Amino acid sequence: MTSSPLHVDANMPNRTFDQGSTGLLVIDPYNDFISDGGKLWNRIRAIAEANQCIAHMLEVVSAARTAGIRVFYALHRRYRPGDYETWRYIAPVQKAAWTSKVFEKGTWGGEIRREFEPQPADVVASEHWCSSAFANTDLDVLLKRHGIQRIIVIGLIAHTCVEASVRFAAELGYDVTVVKDATADYSDEEMHAALDINLPNYATAVVTAREVLEALASVVPA
Amino acid sequence: MTSSPLHVDANMPNRTFDQGSTGLLVIDPYNDFISDGGKLWNRIRAIAEANQCIAHMLEVVSAARTAGIRVFYALHRRYRPGDYETWRYIAPVQKAAWTSKVFEKGTWGGEIRREFEPQPADVVASEHWCSSAFANTDLDVLLKRHGIQRIIVIGLIAHTCVEASVRFAAELGYDVTVVKDATADYSDEEMHAALDINLPNYATAVVTAREVLEALASVVPA
Amino acid sequence: MTSSPLHVDANMPNRTFDQGSTGLLVIDPYNDFISDGGKLWNRIRAIAEANQCIAHMLEVVSAARTAGIRVFYALHRRYRPGDYETWRYIAPVQKAAWTSKVFEKGTWGGEIRREFEPQPADVVASEHWCSSAFANTDLDVLLKRHGIQRIIVIGLIAHTCVEASVRFAAELGYDVTVVKDATADYSDEEMHAALDINLPNYATAVVTAREVLEALASVVPA
Amino acid sequence: MTSSPLHVDANMPNRTFDQGSTGLLVIDPYNDFISDGGKLWNRIRAIAEANQCIAHMLEVVSAARTAGIRVFYALHRRYRPGDYETWRYIAPVQKAAWTSKVFEKGTWGGEIRREFEPQPADVVASEHWCSSAFANTDLDVLLKRHGIQRIIVIGLIAHTCVEASVRFAAELGYDVTVVKDATADYSDEEMHAALDINLPNYATAVVTAREVLEALASVVPA
Repeated sequence: MTSSPLHVDANMPNRTFDQGSTGLLVIDPYNDFISDGGKLWNRIRAIAEANQCIAHMLEVVSAARTAGIRVFYALHRRYRPGDYETWRYIAPVQKAAWTSKVFEKGTWGGEIRREFEPQPADVVASEHWCSSAFANTDLDVLLKRHGIQRIIVIGLIAHTCVEASVRFAAELGYDVTVVKDATADYSDEEMHAALDINLPNYATAVVTAREVLEALASVVPA
Repeated sequence: MTSSPLHVDANMPNRTFDQGSTGLLVIDPYNDFISDGGKLWNRIRAIAEANQCIAHMLEVVSAARTAGIRVFYALHRRYRPGDYETWRYIAPVQKAAWTSKVFEKGTWGGEIRREFEPQPADVVASEHWCSSAFANTDLDVLLKRHGIQRIIVIGLIAHTCVEASVRFAAELGYDVTVVKDATADYSDEEMHAALDINLPNYATAVVTAREVLEALASVVPA
Repeated sequence: MTSSPLHVDANMPNRTFDQGSTGLLVIDPYNDFISDGGKLWNRIRAIAEANQCIAHMLEVVSAARTAGIRVFYALHRRYRPGDYETWRYIAPVQKAAWTSKVFEKGTWGGEIRREFEPQPADVVASEHWCSSAFANTDLDVLLKRHGIQRIIVIGLIAHTCVEASVRFAAELGYDVTVVKDATADYSDEEMHAALDINLPNYATAVVTAREVLEALASVVPA
Repeated sequence: MTSSPLHVDANMPNRTFDQGSTGLLVIDPYNDFISDGGKLWNRIRAIAEANQCIAHMLEVVSAARTAGIRVFYALHRRYRPGDYETWRYIAPVQKAAWTSKVFEKGTWGGEIRREFEPQPADVVASEHWCSSAFANTDLDVLLKRHGIQRIIVIGLIAHTCVEASVRFAAELGYDVTVVKDATADYSDEEMHAALDINLPNYATAVVTAREVLEALASVVPA
């Protein structure tokens, strides 16, 4: 029987990725979140500027492409009129999205920030309605169809979409690495709840952009 | 076209449940969690005693049965030798379960605490491997087959299985009510992260046992 | 405990639908399938004309709207360049779609036939990559969010997308009625395999358009 | 960017498997199906004896173990009293299982036929309620946790559980090989519908036991 040793890395210096089975997941890089003038930018600005979130996100995306690690986009439902009026029940986080019309389709806020525009070889999953990039989308099958078993996660925001996607990824059987300074949140308390309390239960590693860039610099070819 | 008014209750006094579409979800009432001598009891004891978690859980289960609200059990994978040795990747929360052999099959710790033993009309879902009662189980289909669209959630522990199950329930389209003093956690900080930071995004209501008991006392018959 | 009588209708005359829990699922009413000049029209034309498939589909959609039964659209992935080139594995049915560029985005063939254009109150699910309208889409959550537990199914084609969607619906816990002369197929043999061999295992009723129109004429208001 | 060539094998002689990513799925090898005296044996006996189904199943299981290909078991819900009485809706195939009490828990019919008894290194998924081995079970996550992306499928019966599992596997992103003389059915017509009409759309290869044994004899080590 194949040995299948358990790949649980205790520390990042020994954490390595191979092209064939690793993907980068970029969550919700919308103007409304991370561009000056976006509806939610002022709420995450303090943390995003303090940890250089956007610069780190760009560095990780660029390094992944250079390393031959495929990039997957997970995008929240772009608000369209009529989305929720007929629902019998709605989750509070969805009610808030409805009220704020965040990521409205056809508006600048609902567009991906220019530097993060998907490239031809990237894969864009169908939009998610709540917080998890996996729930009710084609992300799982698209990862499988590309042979991906491990994901590196960056994007917005830590305690909602990032945490939800990491929790689902672990439940579905993926190995997860979260880049802690390539995400942001509304408050230190929420950021702390995600990065320090919950994500360490589901992500095998919660690392810095510097650490993941080092690992991406020595990716194992497929 | 049917009106389908949106049932979002701003406050609990007006929150009502009907038999036909509401179920009670009881998460992991194992001896290892909530009985004296259980492997994890000492870690949750301070909070569970302070908020009378177990007494409240019992009251809610009893009231649900009296009200004709069906009870569903969500149970964590009972540890069996060989469960994880061959896995290629494992989430840290699963690694911890493996190390501690928590809820071990065939042992007292892996049995449901006596007062919570499922009754004939209850429904017991298949065991979950990680934290969400929905992931990789038959809970969703069993709820659907019983016509359930709304769930009341109690059990252990707040920031792992309870939060994961509530997040999944919301993603899958269920209306969720969490009973905040019928759950517990290892620390105040983790309890706070679940009850105050994350659950209010996904649960329509986070209420006390007293409030849910009042609502259960006036359930709408099917 | 609520009685929850089992609603299994032995024959259609007694089969009734209520607004609150029933939805109509319209599968792939693309020009490529059901319009003169569509890429696949000539392959299904013989059967579709013999059983008046398109006329029946229109009658059922119209009757559903009149009855206050909400209409849900399940649409196959519209082909886009680059969809499959990077996949490691692909199912034969997907390989065929890739080769034929069926339902190509931005072309007439990938548009919904005019008479079936979704109306404001309708719900359009995200596109499916293979055959099931439920797999990797938001159909399940959109049905749940509208309180739907029973679906009436029409559309194309019987032994692939219709059968796949009915099989998945049953697995997920929905009650299913298939309208057998509001679907079509490439050959009598494939139509027979779907309607007579497989669907009766998963659909509670396989009925004629006339029968479903009668049932829709006496829908129970919400 | 990694090349990710598309592995679609036109013919079996070139179809190869590697240990690390291939698993064998054995569906419902219960006494009730394949043992003399089983409740359904007389209904499948003619076909199962004509194509030497059981001998082929045993040969494939044995060859997989020898080749280091991990064996996964997909088992139908063993009937227990109370399983269905409270369901609001039920699929006809489930109603039949309820009536016949097939695979009854605690009886010989609900036991795995002795020669197919799972071995220590095998993985047994949770029971499925309808036909698909993937629906409402942990099969997908167990395959992922073992790195499996391709499955070889054998077992019972062709047009229900085998076809359903193959359809779901393809939808979920797995590469599928079906062994056509290691399955059986109630009638030639149903066997034909599965093997010749439907499975070729979802399984990349539908092969003989001889062909798969040859492929297993030259498995690529992990």
